[in-house]
Amino acid sequence: MTMTTNLSDIAEVLKSRDNFEILTHKYPDGDTLGSAYALCRILRSMGKNANVIVNGTLSRKMAFLKDGLNDLDFDVQTVVSVDVAAPAQLGDLREKYENIVDVSIDHHDMNTPFAALTYEDPSAASNCENIFKLAKVMDANIDKLTADCIYTGLCTDTGCMKYSSVTADTLRTAAELVDLGCDNARINREMCDTKSVARIKMEQQILNSLTLHCDNKIAVVHTTMQMEKDCGADDGDLDGLANISRQIEGVYIGITVKEKSEKNFRISLRTNHGVNAAEICASLGGGGHIAAAGCTLYGTLEEVKNKIVEVCEKYLNTEYVA
Amino acid sequence: MTMTTNLSDIAEVLKSRDNFEILTHKYPDGDTLGSAYALCRILRSMGKNANVIVNGTLSRKMAFLKDGLNDLDFDVQTVVSVDVAAPAQLGDLREKYENIVDVSIDHHDMNTPFAALTYEDPSAASNCENIFKLAKVMDANIDKLTADCIYTGLCTDTGCMKYSSVTADTLRTAAELVDLGCDNARINREMCDTKSVARIKMEQQILNSLTLHCDNKIAVVHTTMQMEKDCGADDGDLDGLANISRQIEGVYIGITVKEKSEKNFRISLRTNHGVNAAEICASLGGGGHIAAAGCTLYGTLEEVKNKIVEVCEKYLNTEYVA
Repeated sequence: MTMTTNLSDIAEVLKSRDNFEILTHKYPDGDTLGSAYALCRILRSMGKNANVIVNGTLSRKMAFLKDGLNDLDFDVQTVVSVDVAAPAQLGDLREKYENIVDVSIDHHDMNTPFAALTYEDPSAASNCENIFKLAKVMDANIDKLTADCIYTGLCTDTGCMKYSSVTADTLRTAAELVDLGCDNARINREMCDTKSVARIKMEQQILNSLTLHCDNKIAVVHTTMQMEKDCGADDGDLDGLANISRQIEGVYIGITVKEKSEKNFRISLRTNHGVNAAEICASLGGGGHIAAAGCTLYGTLEEVKNKIVEVCEKYLNTEYVA
Repeated sequence: MTMTTNLSDIAEVLKSRDNFEILTHKYPDGDTLGSAYALCRILRSMGKNANVIVNGTLSRKMAFLKDGLNDLDFDVQTVVSVDVAAPAQLGDLREKYENIVDVSIDHHDMNTPFAALTYEDPSAASNCENIFKLAKVMDANIDKLTADCIYTGLCTDTGCMKYSSVTADTLRTAAELVDLGCDNARINREMCDTKSVARIKMEQQILNSLTLHCDNKIAVVHTTMQMEKDCGADDGDLDGLANISRQIEGVYIGITVKEKSEKNFRISLRTNHGVNAAEICASLGGGGHIAAAGCTLYGTLEEVKNKIVEVCEKYLNTEYVA
C-alpha cells in the first residue's frame, strides 16, 4: 500500500527509525545525489546510521558531496528514495528495492507512488528544497557540507537559478544556504561553468555541423558515433548538448540529431516562443513537453535531417500561431 | 565639493528635487541601464519628470527596459549617475556632465567620487540592488516593469546568480523581485542563454583554434580580424569570449589572443586555482585582477602565442604554489 503525506509525518517516521539506506535515481544527477547525501548527513547528525546507495557512478564532479562520509556497516531497517519519480527510475536497483521503499521524497509532477509513504512537492524547483524543508521540520543541524549538498541540487536542477521553475522560494532557500556557509560560487562554477576537454571537442564538432533554415528560425546540429569516439566523449559529456541550437537568437526550433546506431537517430527538439515540440514529435511517433521533446528517425543522416527540417518548416508555416 | 552619504540622505534629496536626467556609463550594460530605467520609473511614479541618457547605444536586447517610457520635455534640474565609478566612465558625456552631477549611486569598490553627493556600496553584487534599497527607503511603488529593470542588473552583473559576488542579500532581493512579478525566467534566457548567429560562429572559430599545453593546464584560443569579419561579429558578439578557455576542466590558465591590428594582439588571461593572472600580465607590461588580467603583445600570431604560453608555463613551473 502506498500513501501520500506531509513533511511532518515524514519527519516523525524518520525520527522513529534507524539504519537508513538512501536510494538515488539511475543516471544520478546533482539533485538526487545532493538530496541523498544531505539527508544522510542530517540523519547521521541525529546519531543515526545512514548510507547512500549511488545508482550508477559517482562522477568526479559530484564526489565532493560525499566528503567525510565513510560507508557504515549496519543491518538496514529503513529504505528512503529521493528524487525518484517512479519504480522504473530505480534502474538496476528496481528488482531489489521496488517493494521495500519505506519513504519517498520527490518533486516530479508525474510521480508514480511506490513507497509506503510518499512526500511529493512538484512546486519545488529541485528535490533538495524538499530536503531543506524536511531538515527544518526535523529541527536538524544543517552544517556547511550539508548546505553544499542541498545547494548543489538547487543549482543543477535550475541551470544555476536560470529556469522558469525557479520561484521566490527557491531563491530564498539559496539565500539561507549561503547564510549557512555553502560554497555557492565554487559549486556554480564546477556545475555550470566547467567543461571536460571531450565536451569542448564535442561542442566544437556540433558548432561545425550547424545549419540554419527557414529564415534562421530553425537551427540543426548533429552528433555521430564517430564524433563521440574521436572526442572521447561519454554520456556525461553529451548532457545538455540539445540546448545549444535553441540558444541562437531568433531560433524558434533547435534540432539536435544524434546517431544512436547505424541509420538510427535520436531527434531532440528544443523550442522558443511557444512552438509545440511535443506536437511535432508526436506526429513522428515521439513525444515530450511543449519546449522539449524527442523522437526516433531511421535513414541516413542526410535523409533524417531533411525529414525533420521539412516537418518543422511545415509546422511553422501552417500550424504555428505566434 | 564631493560628499559620500547614506541612502536616507539620497532619498531626501531626490524627493525634494524634480526634472531628473539619469546618466549611465559608457558601453552601457544591463546593470547601468537597469539602474537608470528603474530609477526613472520610480521617480515618474512619484509624479516627477525624469529621462535616461543612454551613454551609447540601447541594444535590441536591452530595449525592453524602456518599454512605455517616452522621453519627456523639461528643463533639467537634477543630474544623477548610476553605476558610474569615475568621471572617465562617462565617456562622451564627461565634458558636459563631469562637474554637474548632483547624485551618484554606485557599487564599484574603486569609486572615484565626482558628484556632489555619492552613495556607494561595494558589497552589492549589482548597482540595481542599491536602486532597490533606495526605492524602499523612498517608499516608492515598484511595479512589474521596474522589477524587471532591477532584476536585469542583478542577472547581468552576476552571470545569472553565478559569480562569487552573489551574497545572501542578492538572492533575497531576487526573491522579492520575483514576488513583485518580474519576468526572471525570460530575462535570464535573453541575457544569459541567447547568442547571436555571429556569436555562435565566433565560438565555432574559437573552439577550432583551441590548443592545450602543459598537461592541459594551459588552454589557448585566438580570434583574428578576418574571423570577426567572416562571422559578421561586432563588439557585443565578442563579450565574454575570454571565459571560454578557462571553463575547461583541469585548466589553470585560459588564454585568449585577440588580433587588434596587424601584429598587435590583446592577450586576456582568465585563471583558476589561485593562479595570479595580474602578476603574469604585469611581467609583460599589462595588469588586472588575480583571476582576470590582460596585456598587449606584438608579433605574428604564432610568435605571440608561443611567447604567452612560454611565460605561463614558466610561471606554473617555478612561481606557482597550489
